[in-house]
Amino acid sequence: MGVGIVRRAVVALLFVAFAVAPSALPPPARAQADPLPSWNEGPTKAAILNFIAEAVREGGPDFVPVAERIATFDNDGTLWSEQPVYFQAEFAYQRFLGMAPLHPEWATEEPYRTILSGDRTALANLGEQAFTDLLTVTHAGMTVENFDGLVRHWLATARHPRFDRPYDELIYQPMLELLAHLRANGFKTYIVSGGGLDFMRAFADATYGIPPEQVIGSTVVTEFRLEDQTPAIIRLPEVDFIDDGPGKAVGIQRVIGRRPVFAAGNSDGDLQMLQWTTMEEGARFGLIVHHTDAVREWAYDNPSVIGQLKEALAQAPERGWTVVDMKTDWKVIYPFERK
Amino acid sequence: MGVGIVRRAVVALLFVAFAVAPSALPPPARAQADPLPSWNEGPTKAAILNFIAEAVREGGPDFVPVAERIATFDNDGTLWSEQPVYFQAEFAYQRFLGMAPLHPEWATEEPYRTILSGDRTALANLGEQAFTDLLTVTHAGMTVENFDGLVRHWLATARHPRFDRPYDELIYQPMLELLAHLRANGFKTYIVSGGGLDFMRAFADATYGIPPEQVIGSTVVTEFRLEDQTPAIIRLPEVDFIDDGPGKAVGIQRVIGRRPVFAAGNSDGDLQMLQWTTMEEGARFGLIVHHTDAVREWAYDNPSVIGQLKEALAQAPERGWTVVDMKTDWKVIYPFERK
Repeated sequence: MGVGIVRRAVVALLFVAFAVAPSALPPPARAQADPLPSWNEGPTKAAILNFIAEAVREGGPDFVPVAERIATFDNDGTLWSEQPVYFQAEFAYQRFLGMAPLHPEWATEEPYRTILSGDRTALANLGEQAFTDLLTVTHAGMTVENFDGLVRHWLATARHPRFDRPYDELIYQPMLELLAHLRANGFKTYIVSGGGLDFMRAFADATYGIPPEQVIGSTVVTEFRLEDQTPAIIRLPEVDFIDDGPGKAVGIQRVIGRRPVFAAGNSDGDLQMLQWTTMEEGARFGLIVHHTDAVREWAYDNPSVIGQLKEALAQAPERGWTVVDMKTDWKVIYPFERK
Repeated sequence: MGVGIVRRAVVALLFVAFAVAPSALPPPARAQADPLPSWNEGPTKAAILNFIAEAVREGGPDFVPVAERIATFDNDGTLWSEQPVYFQAEFAYQRFLGMAPLHPEWATEEPYRTILSGDRTALANLGEQAFTDLLTVTHAGMTVENFDGLVRHWLATARHPRFDRPYDELIYQPMLELLAHLRANGFKTYIVSGGGLDFMRAFADATYGIPPEQVIGSTVVTEFRLEDQTPAIIRLPEVDFIDDGPGKAVGIQRVIGRRPVFAAGNSDGDLQMLQWTTMEEGARFGLIVHHTDAVREWAYDNPSVIGQLKEALAQAPERGWTVVDMKTDWKVIYPFERK
């Protein structure tokens, strides 16, 4: 199994510099009956509202039966920010640093010595195995419940360097409204992301209203054990499944067993999910969040170490995918801007 | 990955003889407000009804919040019959025979020659690889949708040798009532079975009211492909995951991400699912369907090539699991007995 996503994440963690803080925004005006108050009026918002309205209009040509109202969302860069590094990579790195005092051997043992050193040139020359090792020591060798506790503790204590807020506050207010509007119209909302399954489950319910059984992510191999009359699921140091690129279509089929009718992503890692969702008869909707706002969030697409967006953007016109221009389509980015 | 379950299934397919037809039963009396009319009064039925009543009684000591009302059911031998062979093994074997005319080389090529021959002594000497080969040629090399169509066609045309009915009529009426009663009380009902994921999805919704996203089963590796502007998920000839024994606990955690509060099984393949479900604080319920009725269904437990039940039955008293005696607890076995 490839660990490209791990490598990308860690490379990004170590090489991307922090940007400047955004200016504060006034609370947006909210229309009484507008389900998407943080979206500016325009073709993007109209297309979304129209798709959902038609999906629930019984007898209409684009009606979607309730059981088939499946909507899938990438997480990093689609529901929350992913800069300056994937948040899970930051979790892994901070956990690694926190574990270091208990591992004096890391001072001399590779690749730990290099990772601890912060020497960027040396880090750049570490092989794939080094990144797997980092994932292994920080994400495996514990029960699923213990790992869940580590993630929750990190979220409760860590602060994003640019915004000085907990990472789970850097979620997109317009997307929260979209999730809620879809659910209010009978859609089942799923996360389908390259992030770790158990990492995302630790906050998806509280943060997005998405329960654990509606999270699809990358996994390590796990094992059932019964010791001292206590059953447990243990996370092993072996990658099981990478839920990225074509893996997203595979993961959707395996867990959901239906093709979604709505999918949202922001990078080429979402290309196949968008294809699998939309290249089929009937009402379908593909959404790409384009990061165009360097002031309030970040602006990046191609080339980018994180969230590379080239092929999916190029295919958007022919496939009929709707591209969100964050700068012009979104009144606010984060919930805390609304005060 | 082990293919023990495949081997077991095929061995069973080839070696177990058919039993005699059951005597017809009068339609059972049904109490007006009884949610489980096909269950005889007694401690088994009382325990089930009491658990569900307490789970939904707000403020009670055994109350279970709606989000945590997860109930998992094995399929073969728990929701439908599994004799004289696992129904999926019969599907595989019939499909193999149906494909044979298109494969004249099978007449001389092993292991196909031996499988076609029906020579039981020779079959018994085939190695594990032969059973993987049988699974491969019958279950892989096609899209998930095509496979779904094959299963549906088989269910629509094949007949069970003992009852001369479609296989999906050999489902347990008392368990249908239990599924419905759980759902009526806010439980989410899942299948967690060693059977193939896509095999079970082809009938689970129509037969049990269990949608595709609530089916957990064994899987082959699949691959996303986009050819001629048509995306597809292809089933590859490689076992991905065996959802049996400890794999059931692993599969539950991966797909659901919550520990069930109710689990039902009938064999030692369900042991770890029962442990994972019940060996925890709070209200929990473990159910074992014990096949004790040779007249209306089949009587078997230990030793048995199919549905071996020894260890789970031995642990039932200490773990507090409820054992269903099919002969005395169930008024009818199959829906068609009710006329």
